[in-house]
Amino acid sequence: MNKQKLIVIGAVAAGTKAASKAKRENPDLDVKIFTKEEHISYAGCGLPYYIGGIIKEKNELVVRTPEIFKKEQDIDIFIKHEVTKVDVNSKKVFVTNLDTQEQLSYEYDKLVLAMGASPIKPPLENISLKNIFTLRSVTDAFEIRDLVDAGKVQKAVVVGGGFIGLEVAENLKHRGVEVTLIELAPHVLPPFDEEIALLAQAHMKDKGVNIITSEKVLGFEGNGEFVSKVKSTAGDFEADIVVLSIGVRPNVKIAAEAGIELGTTGAIKVDKYMQTNVGDVFAVGDCAENVNLVTNLPAWYPMGSTSNKTGRIAGNNVVNTEHMDSLEGVLGTTIVKLFDMNAAKTGLSERDARKAGMNIETILVPATDKAHYYPGNKPIITKLIVERSTHKILGAEIIGSGIVDKPIDIIATAMTLNARVEDLTKLDLAYAPPFSMAMSSTIMAANVMLNKLNSKIDTITSRDLQEKLKDSQVNIVDVREEEECFISAIPGTLNIPLNTLSERSGEIDKSKETVILVCKVGKRAFLAYLKLKQQGFENIKVLEGGINAYPYNVE
Amino acid sequence: MNKQKLIVIGAVAAGTKAASKAKRENPDLDVKIFTKEEHISYAGCGLPYYIGGIIKEKNELVVRTPEIFKKEQDIDIFIKHEVTKVDVNSKKVFVTNLDTQEQLSYEYDKLVLAMGASPIKPPLENISLKNIFTLRSVTDAFEIRDLVDAGKVQKAVVVGGGFIGLEVAENLKHRGVEVTLIELAPHVLPPFDEEIALLAQAHMKDKGVNIITSEKVLGFEGNGEFVSKVKSTAGDFEADIVVLSIGVRPNVKIAAEAGIELGTTGAIKVDKYMQTNVGDVFAVGDCAENVNLVTNLPAWYPMGSTSNKTGRIAGNNVVNTEHMDSLEGVLGTTIVKLFDMNAAKTGLSERDARKAGMNIETILVPATDKAHYYPGNKPIITKLIVERSTHKILGAEIIGSGIVDKPIDIIATAMTLNARVEDLTKLDLAYAPPFSMAMSSTIMAANVMLNKLNSKIDTITSRDLQEKLKDSQVNIVDVREEEECFISAIPGTLNIPLNTLSERSGEIDKSKETVILVCKVGKRAFLAYLKLKQQGFENIKVLEGGINAYPYNVE
Repeated sequence: MNKQKLIVIGAVAAGTKAASKAKRENPDLDVKIFTKEEHISYAGCGLPYYIGGIIKEKNELVVRTPEIFKKEQDIDIFIKHEVTKVDVNSKKVFVTNLDTQEQLSYEYDKLVLAMGASPIKPPLENISLKNIFTLRSVTDAFEIRDLVDAGKVQKAVVVGGGFIGLEVAENLKHRGVEVTLIELAPHVLPPFDEEIALLAQAHMKDKGVNIITSEKVLGFEGNGEFVSKVKSTAGDFEADIVVLSIGVRPNVKIAAEAGIELGTTGAIKVDKYMQTNVGDVFAVGDCAENVNLVTNLPAWYPMGSTSNKTGRIAGNNVVNTEHMDSLEGVLGTTIVKLFDMNAAKTGLSERDARKAGMNIETILVPATDKAHYYPGNKPIITKLIVERSTHKILGAEIIGSGIVDKPIDIIATAMTLNARVEDLTKLDLAYAPPFSMAMSSTIMAANVMLNKLNSKIDTITSRDLQEKLKDSQVNIVDVREEEECFISAIPGTLNIPLNTLSERSGEIDKSKETVILVCKVGKRAFLAYLKLKQQGFENIKVLEGGINAYPYNVE
Repeated sequence: MNKQKLIVIGAVAAGTKAASKAKRENPDLDVKIFTKEEHISYAGCGLPYYIGGIIKEKNELVVRTPEIFKKEQDIDIFIKHEVTKVDVNSKKVFVTNLDTQEQLSYEYDKLVLAMGASPIKPPLENISLKNIFTLRSVTDAFEIRDLVDAGKVQKAVVVGGGFIGLEVAENLKHRGVEVTLIELAPHVLPPFDEEIALLAQAHMKDKGVNIITSEKVLGFEGNGEFVSKVKSTAGDFEADIVVLSIGVRPNVKIAAEAGIELGTTGAIKVDKYMQTNVGDVFAVGDCAENVNLVTNLPAWYPMGSTSNKTGRIAGNNVVNTEHMDSLEGVLGTTIVKLFDMNAAKTGLSERDARKAGMNIETILVPATDKAHYYPGNKPIITKLIVERSTHKILGAEIIGSGIVDKPIDIIATAMTLNARVEDLTKLDLAYAPPFSMAMSSTIMAANVMLNKLNSKIDTITSRDLQEKLKDSQVNIVDVREEEECFISAIPGTLNIPLNTLSERSGEIDKSKETVILVCKVGKRAFLAYLKLKQQGFENIKVLEGGINAYPYNVE
């Protein structure tokens, strides 16, 4: 009897995972992987850190070689072999050996598409100049690092302020390069809400990255064949190298040409078993579409974590057709380190949720990542987005110099299991001073959210306060001590320390519409809120997150 | 109209939390807290770190003072006021002012019991000698630190290898003290399973703590009024100070005398609203009983995290009688830092689960806490305990030099929301190289557990292998490279590197009952398992966790 044949197209995370899992499930399977690239199974998310020299050696980036796959698992990986066509009727793939140009074809019983995604390169003037890079493959990273190592890079322009762009900017800065980052949107980290993203942006600026937002790159100028200048709506910027990181698109050409259905996101449509619309053809990793667990709508999150999951599922399902594994969806959980600050997100942003017409409540709560008295504790800010009618958690964003991966993973876990805010407040999380506050940041944020949902407190976001500041119908009362206000306060603030508020509340101008209470993180402002309520004040709001989370001008 | 009166007994975490929350819910409430201690609202879990000088100043330990409570919240705290009696019929508490010996009584409308717990001091010979301490109050910590600061402590004996004992041992060691720790049980960290606890124990020994297990302290000898020697079944140990940390008991005397019901654990019985059996009397924090969420049985976990939660709930419920808050139970989640190692636990241990007669499956899976190629990544080992029939997660233990608080919190969150192992494998956790592996340690452990539950792999624990080694009916085959085995291997091992296994499997002695496959962490052993299966071998098992997690003798 002939062996069952599995062909996998693509050999980074999802492809190799699918192949390995399938081979483990059926050691008699004949498994072949084709990739047009030279490198396989590499750590795509590590590329910026190789440029920065944080990851020192090339071989650290490449997890496993074709030789290892052959020896340990009897999997055949063909590098520099491009699949040019898939025929789903004859169940064949057509392959070009890129070294010899030889044309080959192979039959499959099962096919896994894992072609990944490619960086967008817009048709800008002179975009084909040398030293204009994208960062997707190991080769890209090697070339950029070699230039930096050779001392050829004094100035760099990064186009795009998403995760990769910011990581590249940080890593180039580590290497002593002068970095300008140009972002089309009003702030970096476009998937995040403004008040969170602005905190990250301010930190990047503090660290010396020249960040320019709401501006557009128009084209490039060269010095001979090498780029020398970036032309933008904000003027020209000198550059020895340019790194374009304006996004990626799924590699779906051969799939589409084979009649395999694409989804609304442009990625390959799959069911929860990773099956395409064509029998025996699966799609996994960055070329496949996802479902957003919150909205239940198609979404596309090209993430290494999801690639590993979908690869493993397809690897199981090509073998165990009676016991298929499945993935209902993902939350689009993401995280990024930016110098000494971390930012993470899961589920919907406030902007996403409002755009979708959902009736939501949001809150922003500062805390520390460890016990406030344990050395090395650092601040983080948690933003929760909750559906008002059900109290279901729709999303969260966490930012700060402290630990954010733990709380975002707690919330992502809770969301996957359909938690309400109430559930978060009851979690029995691990507490000892080196690890957490006794009441963890997540529980604190959930408690404040419940106070807000139950109308025990009324708050205002920094964003809305910015709007209100345009007219003068607002009293800003800062209840911190005088010396704290002296360091920084919102312009136009009246300072009445909490301890004196009961006696001095008469100083608040009652002709103005609203009283905004401000303190460092929101705790004293909440106590002030209760005091003023008791005194009969009516239109009072606490500034969410206090001065610590206020990303706009202070004086 | 008279103000409603709330009396709280106890002013550490739970008591102050209950008072604050109640006052916020009803600013007109008259709130009095009585405590026989001098210090209030202090960080009990920080005490060992104050001794070690990690927490430098006394005032860092004390979160808030009575003056602050009065000024900010109009809460009256009476320090050095001992409540000697509660009369639930007349709704009165009887109080002794410990400074003046004045006898006072106060009426309450609602009463919250938050008396905490006290360290056990067994009636051993000469236990009242000076410099024999327990560590529960701020005063204990001050006294021990003062002695160390004064250079009076060269040798210390810690009695008890639970969390506090180990933390004290570490912190005294930091201060240059020679530390001997004596534990009655066969290993330190008694709540953990043996193979996990032994890893912690070995680390403590590596760091120079003299750990003695399965031995009993018999009494003390003095040099004048000061302790000088600890007498034990393992011999005598010189000691300038002794720290007893053999456990705590709930402070329930005045409750029991008032006719308030105690639970089977000896702590005060409460319902999920923190109500005792007596109307208008609540109990919170360490003096109150908990429910274990896994078993649904009464349990007692005197933890700061739970104290904060129960305090807050009672604080709400004394005011909002129509909208009571509740806590269904806890998981007993705990965590400890031991020098460069961290250990955490949630839910049931394997031992707990087996003792309860549950049909379980367990697995031990090593991983790294960050991407394996990102600098600073460190190993952790995850043990999962799962109910075989339902795949429900019953418990987890995680240990290693890497980050353990994040994964234990993910698992605790999942368990609270009734997750099955399958759910863990699908979690969309935050991934970037500085924070996690692409497939996080938790997902990996859950995947291996599913393999085991689905009979795709058969494994053996290090504990069971230890048993088997007593006879010779076992082939241990280590599939690592020769140079790896050279560094350390289990005695009697045959080394056949994975890549040569197909050719060399004939070397395995088939007359012996079982083949145990060993590698560094278990991955190569799994591939070897599949190869041998294919070759017709039958009784094969993979050593869980590999050599990395093997806590017994190697050569």
